[in-house]
Amino acid sequence: MLSSQSLTRMILAGQGKTPADIVIRNVSLLDVITGAITVTDIAIVEDRIVGTHQNYEGKTIIDGTGRFAVPGFIDTHLHIESSLVTPFEFDRCVLPHGVTTVICDPHEIANVLGAEGIRYFLDCAEQTVMDVRVNLSSCVPATAFETSGAALEIDDLEPFRSHNKVIGLAEVMNFPGVLNSDPGIIAKLLAFQDGHIDGHAPLLRGEALNGYLAAGIRTDHEATTAAEAREKLAKGMAILIREGSVSKDLTALAEILDENTSSFVALCTDDRNPLDIAEEGHLDSSIRRLIAMGRPLHHVYRAASHSAARIFGLKDRGLLAPGWRADIALLDSLEGCFVSDVISGGRLVVAELFAARIPVAPVGLTSMKATPVTAKSFDTPAKPGRNETPVIGVKPGLILTFRESATLEQTESGLQPDLNADVIKVAVVERHGLNGNIGRSFVKGFGLKTGAIASSVGHDSHNITVIGANDADMAVAVNRLIELGGGFAVAQDGTITAELALPLAGLMSLEPFETVAHKLHHLRDAANALGCVLPEPFLQVAFLALPVIPHLKMTDRGLFDVDKFDFVD
Amino acid sequence: MLSSQSLTRMILAGQGKTPADIVIRNVSLLDVITGAITVTDIAIVEDRIVGTHQNYEGKTIIDGTGRFAVPGFIDTHLHIESSLVTPFEFDRCVLPHGVTTVICDPHEIANVLGAEGIRYFLDCAEQTVMDVRVNLSSCVPATAFETSGAALEIDDLEPFRSHNKVIGLAEVMNFPGVLNSDPGIIAKLLAFQDGHIDGHAPLLRGEALNGYLAAGIRTDHEATTAAEAREKLAKGMAILIREGSVSKDLTALAEILDENTSSFVALCTDDRNPLDIAEEGHLDSSIRRLIAMGRPLHHVYRAASHSAARIFGLKDRGLLAPGWRADIALLDSLEGCFVSDVISGGRLVVAELFAARIPVAPVGLTSMKATPVTAKSFDTPAKPGRNETPVIGVKPGLILTFRESATLEQTESGLQPDLNADVIKVAVVERHGLNGNIGRSFVKGFGLKTGAIASSVGHDSHNITVIGANDADMAVAVNRLIELGGGFAVAQDGTITAELALPLAGLMSLEPFETVAHKLHHLRDAANALGCVLPEPFLQVAFLALPVIPHLKMTDRGLFDVDKFDFVD
Repeated sequence: MLSSQSLTRMILAGQGKTPADIVIRNVSLLDVITGAITVTDIAIVEDRIVGTHQNYEGKTIIDGTGRFAVPGFIDTHLHIESSLVTPFEFDRCVLPHGVTTVICDPHEIANVLGAEGIRYFLDCAEQTVMDVRVNLSSCVPATAFETSGAALEIDDLEPFRSHNKVIGLAEVMNFPGVLNSDPGIIAKLLAFQDGHIDGHAPLLRGEALNGYLAAGIRTDHEATTAAEAREKLAKGMAILIREGSVSKDLTALAEILDENTSSFVALCTDDRNPLDIAEEGHLDSSIRRLIAMGRPLHHVYRAASHSAARIFGLKDRGLLAPGWRADIALLDSLEGCFVSDVISGGRLVVAELFAARIPVAPVGLTSMKATPVTAKSFDTPAKPGRNETPVIGVKPGLILTFRESATLEQTESGLQPDLNADVIKVAVVERHGLNGNIGRSFVKGFGLKTGAIASSVGHDSHNITVIGANDADMAVAVNRLIELGGGFAVAQDGTITAELALPLAGLMSLEPFETVAHKLHHLRDAANALGCVLPEPFLQVAFLALPVIPHLKMTDRGLFDVDKFDFVD
Repeated sequence: MLSSQSLTRMILAGQGKTPADIVIRNVSLLDVITGAITVTDIAIVEDRIVGTHQNYEGKTIIDGTGRFAVPGFIDTHLHIESSLVTPFEFDRCVLPHGVTTVICDPHEIANVLGAEGIRYFLDCAEQTVMDVRVNLSSCVPATAFETSGAALEIDDLEPFRSHNKVIGLAEVMNFPGVLNSDPGIIAKLLAFQDGHIDGHAPLLRGEALNGYLAAGIRTDHEATTAAEAREKLAKGMAILIREGSVSKDLTALAEILDENTSSFVALCTDDRNPLDIAEEGHLDSSIRRLIAMGRPLHHVYRAASHSAARIFGLKDRGLLAPGWRADIALLDSLEGCFVSDVISGGRLVVAELFAARIPVAPVGLTSMKATPVTAKSFDTPAKPGRNETPVIGVKPGLILTFRESATLEQTESGLQPDLNADVIKVAVVERHGLNGNIGRSFVKGFGLKTGAIASSVGHDSHNITVIGANDADMAVAVNRLIELGGGFAVAQDGTITAELALPLAGLMSLEPFETVAHKLHHLRDAANALGCVLPEPFLQVAFLALPVIPHLKMTDRGLFDVDKFDFVD
């Protein structure tokens, strides 16, 4: 709560009657409204910009000569869990990319730990240097067709509604539940009618989309073609252009961002892994690429900041102007979006800020409750009377999967992979200690010739998903994950060739970001050694079990047809 | 509060599975985002649009063939009192112009009645067909340099904050109070930091503007030149282009509204009298003129609707799309903005809707507490040792006044008007029964050759303001106003030649809008008969006492220099 003394200081410093706390001197300020670039000072008191377009004196001076100032970037939809590190490590490594606000949905940890996971994120959000905002996970579990570690009804979410870091209801991915007026979904939608309700509507078009929107849902980050995005825009949805590690929609959607639409478009990453963050960056990478693709520069920066803030009701940020929150990225180049310094809530981002955060104890360290498996656990008998076996088709960079099929050889241990046709086995092992389910089927597109890859990151219920060219290595990989308390593992010829422990709910590492990135390099190399042809094998494994993304998915209960929203018979 | 049954109906009707309540069939829908025009049905359930861009069945069908649908218009800043009729009559006469939401500041009635006046407006707002929203009057009295009927501190405003019709804090016109950190103003600003704070900053530029904005103030409707508006836009202010009856800024500001700025610009009327509403229209007139001046059509409509809603945090309206509030103007022509039908909160606007409102009892019927005056009351002695008398300069269509002077003849009754130089007398008679003050000075620009014009509408303290070519007629006019309980009066040769009673707080008529408009025609003719050369004599009289608008103003305590913010010595 602002004090009258602070407000008075802001008013006086804005008038130049007293020195500001910080002055960025002689910087080229980009106006994301008009596109004008003005060389000016920017004066800051506490967390607020108090003066622009004038000269100021300040206690601390930051030289802006030759640099550009733009509003801090806002990631409008992401799961921090996908960075594989804690919110503290995410903060430390992503804020320097100019990302001063993230709007996260703790959906992954909530599926494992329920309300305890949301509480952990909110506790972290009170400490992070960047402003971490939370939308409350709406679909835990995502569907009734899988086993998750927790279920959150409206009564579980209500206690969090008034938390100052909470924005609204997170992505309503159970669109069939909306369209069929599922009572649990209706209760959540009703509770947030006056707040924000985030959408998630892949491929939803026409009257079905209208029905979904009639519920008061306002955003979408799942459009994968410009035509789909244009229909959604025409129906009032704000489009969040996603560029994650698996789902990469920026190239397809770039064309929708123009002078007309820029106030209705924002950017997000959804799920971005540490390697991409380390190698390409974060929203800075999206901005750079959109500009390179010819999108109008100041409209790109507007979408990344002010539009995002407006769409999510963050009224205090998104412009570099007096009275607005001092979230500022200083760039060496506007076109290249090279971030050289960041101001977050009026503080210059330096290592000491991160060191000063009060630690939050990790949670979910005993969440891995699966019992060890054997090769036999993955036996997959043929369905009687069926010659063609349905196969999940995977393509690089898409979490959408495709409906394929294969004629597979059958032995006493059931249907066999066909490595020549790139058809290998996939299984999901329930790991919340609830029923010990194992779902089994086949997948095509990974290119594995040997070995297995297992992951306890398995959207959205986070059971263990494993793919493999043979059952023995699948068992080795799964059993190692159980020992690690969760993580990633690659097995080849009966031994583990690479691994990463993710003991925090089976989703996040307790190690520094750099260590995690290093281990992921090893894992990628190990996957390549199996013949894997996908650039992001672990994330693509992790999305095989997500039954709200068309078309065919694998859960612990069996092969799932998302389009008919039921199991394959 | 929406019921689950209603939400379910909306979702089903949006999918076309059940009939909508209302379907506008075959209408040309203007997309204010992209400018696309699509012939479609618009389906409505209760107060919500549930479907567009598809065909629908409904219980009631409105033929949209050959017509255009645009989002209902939002007047972002006005004083309903300036329409001289009650909120109910305003509703009945302005809603058919497509104005489905107004954001009013009950500043005038609050200056007379205090909290009772705000309560009256909120009670009316719960009944009106249009959505009347209220910003809480921040500056009652506007300054300490006049006598008003009430004073509102933060403790008086707090009880209204949570009312569902309240948006935030209304125009903070006491900008010197902000810049000098007046404790009462600081307390109000602090209380609304997390809400909306409306601005009012005529001619404020440079560092002073920065100091004002550092307080968290976000809008301005007082820019009178494009250069002023551009500086304010560059400093993050939303610009509300005002076209009232006296203050007409649209021509000067039109150029700022373009593809870049349209999400940061909205429209308002501030003070619009019944004659202008009857003869030219309301926001429809502003839209028509902006388009005629070449401003991009769909950006004009965006400013009038979606941008306005966003700027003021009205998240439910401003687009014609599923899930958005069904506030719709049906037009015979987009360029001409000819409104042929209006849907307000899902209801087709017809006479029966207005008849069904539950009446709200008028307030302030005994607020006129002045005692009768005589010609002698207006004696204006010369200041010792001063040859030149300061004179308020008035120009048509501006509430800004100018600093002029004259050498006036002096008799035993003091300084005399100089009719040849168009210098006549002006006086403000305190009428709240508090001290009986009479302030006296001179004004130039009205053109009066005889008689007097008096008004109990006298921004912002609403004492009686009277101008006259002779003291006797001034007394006749003032005394008639006292008998009427407030209003307008024209006196000539000792008799009243035209009048309008405004007994509701001395500000509003209890008669129908049409009767008021008729009487205003008479008043205008009577003023013309005195030689008056201003097109809006009554409104210009009414603004002579407003000491927050530069440069020279008249209060009951004396002649006021707005620039030095003190009385003329």
